[in-house]
Amino acid sequence: MLLVEKLPLAHWLKTYRKQDLVSDFIAGLIATIIMVPQGMAYALLAGLPAEYGLYCAILPSFLYAILGSSRSLSVGPAALISIMVASSVGALAPANELEYLKYAVNISFLAGLFLLLMRLFRLGSMTNFISLPVISGFTSASAIIILTSQLKHILGLSIPTGFGFTETLVAIYQQMSTANSATLMIGAFACIGLWYFKNIFPRHVKLCAFHPLIEQALSKAGPMFIVLVSAYVVYFMQLNEVKHVSVVGAIPEGFPSLQIWQLDVTLWQELALPSLLIALMCFVTSISVGTKLASKRKERVNANQELLALGVANLVSGLSGTFALAASMSRSAVNHSAGAQTTIASIVCAFGVLLTLLFLTPFFYYLPLAVLGAIVVMSVVSMIEIEQVSRCWKVNRTDAYSLIATFLTVLVFGIEVGISVGIIGSVILVVYRASHPHIAIVGRVGNSQHFRNIKRHQVKTEQDILAIRVDESIYFSNVQCIEDFILGEAKSASRIKHIVLIFSSVSFVDTTALDAFEAMKVKLEEASIKLHLAEVKGPVMDQLEQTQFIEQLKPGRIFFTTDDAFKALSAES
Amino acid sequence: MLLVEKLPLAHWLKTYRKQDLVSDFIAGLIATIIMVPQGMAYALLAGLPAEYGLYCAILPSFLYAILGSSRSLSVGPAALISIMVASSVGALAPANELEYLKYAVNISFLAGLFLLLMRLFRLGSMTNFISLPVISGFTSASAIIILTSQLKHILGLSIPTGFGFTETLVAIYQQMSTANSATLMIGAFACIGLWYFKNIFPRHVKLCAFHPLIEQALSKAGPMFIVLVSAYVVYFMQLNEVKHVSVVGAIPEGFPSLQIWQLDVTLWQELALPSLLIALMCFVTSISVGTKLASKRKERVNANQELLALGVANLVSGLSGTFALAASMSRSAVNHSAGAQTTIASIVCAFGVLLTLLFLTPFFYYLPLAVLGAIVVMSVVSMIEIEQVSRCWKVNRTDAYSLIATFLTVLVFGIEVGISVGIIGSVILVVYRASHPHIAIVGRVGNSQHFRNIKRHQVKTEQDILAIRVDESIYFSNVQCIEDFILGEAKSASRIKHIVLIFSSVSFVDTTALDAFEAMKVKLEEASIKLHLAEVKGPVMDQLEQTQFIEQLKPGRIFFTTDDAFKALSAES
Repeated sequence: MLLVEKLPLAHWLKTYRKQDLVSDFIAGLIATIIMVPQGMAYALLAGLPAEYGLYCAILPSFLYAILGSSRSLSVGPAALISIMVASSVGALAPANELEYLKYAVNISFLAGLFLLLMRLFRLGSMTNFISLPVISGFTSASAIIILTSQLKHILGLSIPTGFGFTETLVAIYQQMSTANSATLMIGAFACIGLWYFKNIFPRHVKLCAFHPLIEQALSKAGPMFIVLVSAYVVYFMQLNEVKHVSVVGAIPEGFPSLQIWQLDVTLWQELALPSLLIALMCFVTSISVGTKLASKRKERVNANQELLALGVANLVSGLSGTFALAASMSRSAVNHSAGAQTTIASIVCAFGVLLTLLFLTPFFYYLPLAVLGAIVVMSVVSMIEIEQVSRCWKVNRTDAYSLIATFLTVLVFGIEVGISVGIIGSVILVVYRASHPHIAIVGRVGNSQHFRNIKRHQVKTEQDILAIRVDESIYFSNVQCIEDFILGEAKSASRIKHIVLIFSSVSFVDTTALDAFEAMKVKLEEASIKLHLAEVKGPVMDQLEQTQFIEQLKPGRIFFTTDDAFKALSAES
Repeated sequence: MLLVEKLPLAHWLKTYRKQDLVSDFIAGLIATIIMVPQGMAYALLAGLPAEYGLYCAILPSFLYAILGSSRSLSVGPAALISIMVASSVGALAPANELEYLKYAVNISFLAGLFLLLMRLFRLGSMTNFISLPVISGFTSASAIIILTSQLKHILGLSIPTGFGFTETLVAIYQQMSTANSATLMIGAFACIGLWYFKNIFPRHVKLCAFHPLIEQALSKAGPMFIVLVSAYVVYFMQLNEVKHVSVVGAIPEGFPSLQIWQLDVTLWQELALPSLLIALMCFVTSISVGTKLASKRKERVNANQELLALGVANLVSGLSGTFALAASMSRSAVNHSAGAQTTIASIVCAFGVLLTLLFLTPFFYYLPLAVLGAIVVMSVVSMIEIEQVSRCWKVNRTDAYSLIATFLTVLVFGIEVGISVGIIGSVILVVYRASHPHIAIVGRVGNSQHFRNIKRHQVKTEQDILAIRVDESIYFSNVQCIEDFILGEAKSASRIKHIVLIFSSVSFVDTTALDAFEAMKVKLEEASIKLHLAEVKGPVMDQLEQTQFIEQLKPGRIFFTTDDAFKALSAES
């Protein structure tokens, strides 16, 4: 079984000790305590019944644990992906809940397919092309959209999933008078409770001087505690009947069967773009969390292996009839600090969730949706990174602008448009920079054979020779800029008789560049200027010799060094 | 009237002589002789009644003549744009001819709008991002599609406009037995006649020793002659009745009224993408023809002015109820060689077409469609540039691959997909190259203070110091590649204690790069390697000082020169 041996998990197990198993087991239990309420909350955020968050956290999470290359990532329902699912499916206006589920399932399957395709083409390094400011702007704006989307649960309003940011705000404003006061009370208490458990309670626990592991488990149990208490309160006071508080309701017992019949190829054209964006964000966010945690352990995440693991997880998520998933930043951080040594912690967590689904679901019948909304709200508040704006502003204005532009586009035009604009903007920026290569006019340093930039060094130039060094390979995207520079210089300096292009940094030229040089040579000739080349590298010389170029350059010549060129051309004039 | 004075035409008129007017007038007449049959033929290619080609050649052409910056371009119906219109509209399956026209009109308007938007954002230099091989592959494949699409007229078959390449081939094969022999005869004779007039007749005319202008007018009159003769033959033998030869039929007299009611905003979402592609190709082909002809006159075409002129021409083309237009390569070349001095030649041509439309249309009633098909076929044969493949192969393999890929994609998946793939491929190529910056390990040249690439120069290095020069500004798209390089080198050379990054070519860094450097510094520390910088330029230093970076780099230092760094670090160890 060679393939199995290649898995990261197999590699880790070679040095796995009993002590690691204990750490993994405890970290897995702590992860379960967080996963159950958060999974249900994120399913709600995705617009699906709460139990789908649990389904998502079993088989797909388990598969990630088998295949993933990060020791600490907790892959399962994730806030950003859930809101993307909600907004994509909502935009397609499904007729009923069954159709909604069908769309979500197909998106997950397609996202998995896209991730596997990226793996096939080894596009693991593609994250390079989305800059951190774009991701930061996207995350902050998404967090605000997520917050707004959950207000309906906390206020007990009925606003359709998939409403955009402004639509939701307007709807909340209009329906404010119909808010359910009992739901609001529960939501407010849940928020306060979650805040207390996150910020104050750990300090209190610390004072009790428990065993560190118990201390950590207690510190993280806040959401689970609030879930159980609130469900009991609603049950005890029958608030769902008396005050019409929305609750989770009956969860089908046991786990769902594989639902391959839900896949519908006719939908795929419509779903392709949102699925691709979800696949991208799934990969980008997971890899960025994974890299951060791995660097704390002095390890690296294998981007292509992650593509495979996330791809299989999402594909199977679709096949088993649930929704798209990714690494959750908050859960992964907890997993890491709880001491997870390998993905065995995630396997333990998957089994924990499975047991919850098999035996504990009756306890969630009375769980108010407002509490799940509050859990979402409190988890995403930290995703709003205001401080990044000022940091980017200091380093690089363009970064700050792209952060703000992505942020505003997401808020105004929605998540899909926002991330598309961010990605396209990043690509345009790269292309723009690639089309403006560094070009320097050079002169002789003292009496040496060295030639340097006239702007940065004390150098000697000659009246009738202009030496221009192009600091990049020359091809279609930058040749126009180079041509403009050379023709501009030729025009402004009237005494010039020779232009020497120094090719010391040119590793290749392409057809477009050669055509442009031929045209430029003709234009320069009309101004009685000859075009020469110098310091042409071997491979480029081979390229030129394959074509008519050297013939066409005449009377221009190709010199071995810039020094040769200056000596020969000065002697001529 | 300051704006008027800024027009290229106003500028030319300042030095306009009587002799120029004579040249322009004659060139305009010759252009009319070509424009009338070609315009009708290209309208047919676009799937519209023949007269629309004439409409297109009047007002829109006139407006281009007023606004354009190229003296020689003949803007009007163009083969490439016409086939794009046919394929875009055909793909939307319009219910009837009226709806077909409506789509075509809206596409033209939208394409004009896109061109004006590009003008607004001064995107004239955007043609840089489509490489010549991509355009060449696109043109050759389009020419083949155009050829195939016209076979139905020559064979007298009824195949819907908008059928793709393979569909058309299959349909021709299936319907071959129903081909109309009279039509086929006319088509074959027209092809032979056109070939004769293009290749043999000019030589015969030359022998007669006419005045050069008459000689030229006669040489170019072939298509017009064949149009008139074939129409007369069909009329005389009543072939349209007797043999069911398809003819142009009745053309409404006079010119069309402005048809603003045809614009339908509800269609625009569907039409946006094809219109954008048509706008792009309109601009790219026009600018490439214009640049070629302008360089023969030692002039330059103003790309942004061309965007304006082409934008207005297409916008008004849509407003006046006809289809999209661009510069035609064949007509522009004739215009140039006929001695057109300014766009007044085009104005003369527009009036010539107008007079034709007012007085000569009855002569075209019996004009067989097969002749128009033959005119298209003979005009586009020269667009197939087989020799470019071998040229690109010699210069740059990537160029050859992108030519062939674009060519095949256009043939197999159609024109829109083909050009999209070509453009996206070009952008990916730029991005890929931008993400692989040139990085060199450097060593000391002799005992000098100069440091050069160890691969290309005889230099001295030190065991525990690795000096790495990055030859580009560092930002999100290339920082990953730089990081991989540095970490890879650090791993392979075990004795290294210091890495000095030489920033002599770095003009800026961005936030993503700073984050990556901070992470890299931590990773290197674990291998007991210190990270230093040297030769940091002023602006970059300012950027670093704005952040915590210098603080976080410690114990790493920033040296003024590489020489300083080597001296200080050698002394330490």
